Amino acid sequence: MSVTNKKWVLKERPQGLVKNENFELIEEDLREIKDGEVLIENQYLSFDPTQRMWLTDLPGYLPPVQIDEVVRSGGIGKIIESKNEDFSEGDLVSGMVGWQTYHIPSENDLKTMRKVPDVLPIPTMLNIFGSTGITAYFGLLDVGNPQPGETVVVSGAAGATGAMVCQIAKIKGCHVIGIAGGEEKCSWLKDCGVDDVIDYKNSNVPEELTKLAKNGIDIYFDNVGGPILESVLFLININARIVCCGSISNYTGDQMPVGPRNLTMLIVRRAKMQGFLVLDYYGRASEAIDDISKWAIEGKIKHREDIQEGIENCPETLNRLFTGQNQGKQMLKI
Amino acid sequence: MSVTNKKWVLKERPQGLVKNENFELIEEDLREIKDGEVLIENQYLSFDPTQRMWLTDLPGYLPPVQIDEVVRSGGIGKIIESKNEDFSEGDLVSGMVGWQTYHIPSENDLKTMRKVPDVLPIPTMLNIFGSTGITAYFGLLDVGNPQPGETVVVSGAAGATGAMVCQIAKIKGCHVIGIAGGEEKCSWLKDCGVDDVIDYKNSNVPEELTKLAKNGIDIYFDNVGGPILESVLFLININARIVCCGSISNYTGDQMPVGPRNLTMLIVRRAKMQGFLVLDYYGRASEAIDDISKWAIEGKIKHREDIQEGIENCPETLNRLFTGQNQGKQMLKI
Repeated sequence: MSVTNKKWVLKERPQGLVKNENFELIEEDLREIKDGEVLIENQYLSFDPTQRMWLTDLPGYLPPVQIDEVVRSGGIGKIIESKNEDFSEGDLVSGMVGWQTYHIPSENDLKTMRKVPDVLPIPTMLNIFGSTGITAYFGLLDVGNPQPGETVVVSGAAGATGAMVCQIAKIKGCHVIGIAGGEEKCSWLKDCGVDDVIDYKNSNVPEELTKLAKNGIDIYFDNVGGPILESVLFLININARIVCCGSISNYTGDQMPVGPRNLTMLIVRRAKMQGFLVLDYYGRASEAIDDISKWAIEGKIKHREDIQEGIENCPETLNRLFTGQNQGKQMLKI
Repeated sequence: MSVTNKKWVLKERPQGLVKNENFELIEEDLREIKDGEVLIENQYLSFDPTQRMWLTDLPGYLPPVQIDEVVRSGGIGKIIESKNEDFSEGDLVSGMVGWQTYHIPSENDLKTMRKVPDVLPIPTMLNIFGSTGITAYFGLLDVGNPQPGETVVVSGAAGATGAMVCQIAKIKGCHVIGIAGGEEKCSWLKDCGVDDVIDYKNSNVPEELTKLAKNGIDIYFDNVGGPILESVLFLININARIVCCGSISNYTGDQMPVGPRNLTMLIVRRAKMQGFLVLDYYGRASEAIDDISKWAIEGKIKHREDIQEGIENCPETLNRLFTGQNQGKQMLKI
């Protein structure tokens, strides 16, 4: 099948928010697929803060996107031609599809593609069953190990991962304090059943935290990095767990952030900080998907998707995560 | 029995190194002991970095020493009079005896006193079987969980705890890099069998670490806090463990230290930082003492004690830990 692919390649490493000029949108006629290959028509691209980090050359868990390479991103596409017996035309697949309209995965890339059932709207699947849901599930339950009655603080709480963490923590019987930016997000979090919400754009976070975390903090699910961690550390309980999931405040990589000056609180409170990556949990993804489906059916999980449109809008869609414009899981419909 | 006690009480919270004027050395005639009490003649006082923290009013794992209270410190003393059936005259006991020549423990304090066998010189016992040895043992083995062939970095490596950690890590088959200040300490560490030594006073620690930790760092046993942690974080391996034991660079409490700016490495490397306190392990102290005795008998554990003399020298003995003058476990013979 002969198709014309539109793909964004990296031209220079961005500083701060990305600009269109950091990339180039190239049209190319795709070659025919060979035996064992498939041709994917990308449908929805997922935008996650970690993508910004892949554009820097800082040490990371995946190699940096190279100059002239297609920008790496997750997403869901449909197989429109297959010369591989494991995939049929019409299959929906989830994986690293990249900022482009079509995709012929390499043999190794194809192995990491997962078929997704065509039962829910694609955006819903990309959100709650995608890396977002799996990240929230294992980060909170496996690393954080929440117990009923404990106090859980979540930063970036209105983000796709954060909101899922808040709701799973509620299901597990915790008192949940969510930190988010702006009235709209805070009000949505209240709708999700979060006990207390701190609007970091319009209040003094250390003061509010001290007031709201009356029994101290048992778990901090950190999506943002930076100064909030320091405020939390002063309030942690004995045996507290700090789950390091993301560090959106630092991902643009232009200057080193300020580190928390009170790490001795980890000693005083016999606490731990632990980082994790969702990719280590893909082998157990079905545990997360089973539970999250059940909770979603029981109406215990609210979710929302922020869907931009058009391949030409990839760079500015990525920026929405860093300006806080996104309302819910950020994605783009091609 | 009528004795005259000399005791150091706190008069004001010190800034930086302590001065004699921050305290007052008081002589008092001690009252007779009552039923259930004992009278202890203190023999050796233990000096540990954490004591400096107790003199500040920062949040800690024990309440701050109050103004006009005797300065808190561990030590070993001899029961010279007993009206308690659990203790006999002549018994050696270890516990919080304080900066004083005699001590009548309160009922609660007496419960925390442990009898020590009179088999080894008291300074040796205060060092390798005291909180020093138990801290090193459980911090490294329980929190750090070293595996043969792993690379272990120890800061404050020539200190009493650090040197013990280095040697236990060698016994467990690890490659050990010790960081200490000055040639004399570094050379002693080599004598203890440490593979590589970095003299932080005379070399560039990040460069040396990068050169020596060729296979990355699996465990960092942190006794000092501050900037070394940042250098280590850049070099940690996947699933690294950072054992937060102490933070001597911050204990004077006068200004907030700089925090590591690269905590996202915890995510990238799925690593954990965990704080612990030896007092949580006293219930399991015999495990440590059994193993350490065995290793000491087998000649696998070198140790040395820095013994000052005279109750009047308590304040300046404490300072030796912060100026790096101490060579080995700091203590004072009364």
